Amino acid sequence: MKNAFYAQSGGVTSVINMSAYGVISELSRLDKSINVYAGQNGIVGLLENNLYDLSKTKKDLSLLKDSPAGMFGSCRYKLPELTEKEFYEDLFKRLDQKSIRYFFYNGGNDSADTCLKVAEAAKDQGYELSAIAVPKTIDNDLAVTDNCPGFGSVAKYIATSSKEASLDIRSMCKTSTKVFILEVMGRHAGWIAASAELANSSEDTFVHKILLPEVQLDKDAFLDGIQNDVKNYGYSVVVASEGLKNNDGNLYAASDSKDSFGHTQLGGLAPKLAQLINNELKLKYHWSVSDYLQRSARHLASKTDLEQAFAVGVHAVKLALSGETGVMPIIKRVSNNPYKWEIGTGDLKDIANLEKTLPKEYISECGFRITSEGKQYLSPLIQGENYPEFLNGVPKYEQLDLFLSD
Amino acid sequence: MKNAFYAQSGGVTSVINMSAYGVISELSRLDKSINVYAGQNGIVGLLENNLYDLSKTKKDLSLLKDSPAGMFGSCRYKLPELTEKEFYEDLFKRLDQKSIRYFFYNGGNDSADTCLKVAEAAKDQGYELSAIAVPKTIDNDLAVTDNCPGFGSVAKYIATSSKEASLDIRSMCKTSTKVFILEVMGRHAGWIAASAELANSSEDTFVHKILLPEVQLDKDAFLDGIQNDVKNYGYSVVVASEGLKNNDGNLYAASDSKDSFGHTQLGGLAPKLAQLINNELKLKYHWSVSDYLQRSARHLASKTDLEQAFAVGVHAVKLALSGETGVMPIIKRVSNNPYKWEIGTGDLKDIANLEKTLPKEYISECGFRITSEGKQYLSPLIQGENYPEFLNGVPKYEQLDLFLSD
Repeated sequence: MKNAFYAQSGGVTSVINMSAYGVISELSRLDKSINVYAGQNGIVGLLENNLYDLSKTKKDLSLLKDSPAGMFGSCRYKLPELTEKEFYEDLFKRLDQKSIRYFFYNGGNDSADTCLKVAEAAKDQGYELSAIAVPKTIDNDLAVTDNCPGFGSVAKYIATSSKEASLDIRSMCKTSTKVFILEVMGRHAGWIAASAELANSSEDTFVHKILLPEVQLDKDAFLDGIQNDVKNYGYSVVVASEGLKNNDGNLYAASDSKDSFGHTQLGGLAPKLAQLINNELKLKYHWSVSDYLQRSARHLASKTDLEQAFAVGVHAVKLALSGETGVMPIIKRVSNNPYKWEIGTGDLKDIANLEKTLPKEYISECGFRITSEGKQYLSPLIQGENYPEFLNGVPKYEQLDLFLSD
Repeated sequence: MKNAFYAQSGGVTSVINMSAYGVISELSRLDKSINVYAGQNGIVGLLENNLYDLSKTKKDLSLLKDSPAGMFGSCRYKLPELTEKEFYEDLFKRLDQKSIRYFFYNGGNDSADTCLKVAEAAKDQGYELSAIAVPKTIDNDLAVTDNCPGFGSVAKYIATSSKEASLDIRSMCKTSTKVFILEVMGRHAGWIAASAELANSSEDTFVHKILLPEVQLDKDAFLDGIQNDVKNYGYSVVVASEGLKNNDGNLYAASDSKDSFGHTQLGGLAPKLAQLINNELKLKYHWSVSDYLQRSARHLASKTDLEQAFAVGVHAVKLALSGETGVMPIIKRVSNNPYKWEIGTGDLKDIANLEKTLPKEYISECGFRITSEGKQYLSPLIQGENYPEFLNGVPKYEQLDLFLSD
């Protein structure tokens, strides 16, 4: 008897449950004897003996396709080094109790690290296990893969929201607000902010300034640019990554809190930029911080993103059942026009803890916009709509009935 | 020859252009000889001789149905008192130059004031004019009418976004964020924040605390409540009106800027509440400020709201052509189950400058939730979806080709 463990880790996305559905439905399709245990809150569920036994679930697992965030709960939790042998002995004992030989860990860079540690510890200790990472991150910053499931949907949300807000301020700018700032996620990589460029077309500019963590803020150039926008268009729309840096390389807006990986808690950039603009230019502003709204907006998910999220889940199962370990399904771009992609395989050693930032050729010379090469990369990822079912005016997002295993 | 003036005023909504379409298409249907001049940026367009001549527009006016914000531009502009006779003489001279006898002003409380002044000045000066206000405000705070076009869509957006963000934090709360705060619009009336209650059902609670301008903040009760939520649910979701007041009646988060009506510019409540929670309870938080995003989100508009926005535009034309002036179409609720509504007529004297706040019976005893009576009122307004056309992954929102008149 061989069973499977599946868990979700790190910041969730609006399509991570689609990857869960890919894994679970493919396992069931290929080998009905495999029972799936889902970790309650990621690897923490395994360590605390809180595993959902999915054979007990009565509702249809296809509900996963419609619901954003992590159906089984996620976590931010760093595994100890491999030298902590007792920790891993205990972990494999827990897996062995459920005859688990397939380990699927659905997450980003940190989660790839977790999965790699589990794969290597299993080899060291001779525990038979296929440990496969399933890619997920709104940040689009995983190495090796062309893009990451979860990103396309947040990109679609940011491009759409920027365009909508831009139409709003365009209506008002004659006698009211002149500058609108939207703060988006993106700690080290500016992919999400960059996606705001997709609001623009050759006919019309909706987003005027994009502030990336990759480009240190030149305040004078920024303020001059805002003034020019207001002169030329009547207003300026700024989309800023939370991870924007000063020209000394420090975060423009940092707080004191840190998470368990030591990452600084961010947030508060938009009001700080608004204050700068108001102090220096005396322009009326509005600002918005999209925070969790951007990454949970399943109502505006990208169809392409959903398809890729499903495909990496399915491929992870193929890898596991063919005995691979320490690997991750990746998305390979075959062509741009028409956009074609296929699934390949990446080694977790080339992925764990690495971050892929925006390449220079995607950033315009002025540093405040995205090049057409960058747009060509981004555009296919937001194509297509797939609306969830609504009930009483709000998305239904029905949750599964989940039961812990004995 | 009798022509018409139409303009948009005050903060825009995702469905105000639907009202414009109601006015313009109904005028055309009833009397093809009427030419429509749209004010560029509201009444300011009239005062500055910037009128769009819609007979010059080549694109199909039905584009208005899909696009959020004000297609013709809006304004925040206060007309002088009626004693300033010269101002109004000049205004009517401008209207007369275009043979304008129908005046449609699409806005909220302040705009009703503008429209009422124009109606009364026209009577005083013997200028033949039907001045009709067309209701529009996301704030839902107009008197006499049961609800306001523009509100249903923002309510749908807030209920949906709250539910989505709640699923997100629910996934993460075991090892990460415990409190999420969403700041929404609502200066004096808490209708928008109240709509977050629509995320909740008898089966599941997604929003735990709603902070209204109508209820002065009791910090101790609020902090105790958050602690209880974290204990009972693992996390707490707070939706807060920007106009929340301290227990001394002053705004909890005010800035120094004011608009031309003397209204204080708000924003920054969410980070302030987050700081309070972090200081007092040491809980990890995230916060979001939806600002313009909430009122421009045409991609998530309420079908009911769109229908009502259209209907008030159509009815405004009927009122104008039958010689009424100083009035506004209102929405009357005929029944709740099933929800039925009809259009009636309200006197601007009972509407201008007044604000309808949330009635006591809609606010729960604890002050942090909405009663079932309140939900019964709110729920019909967010029913139904009507998605805009998408192009290249973002809503198309094609804008009209507009030409100023000679």
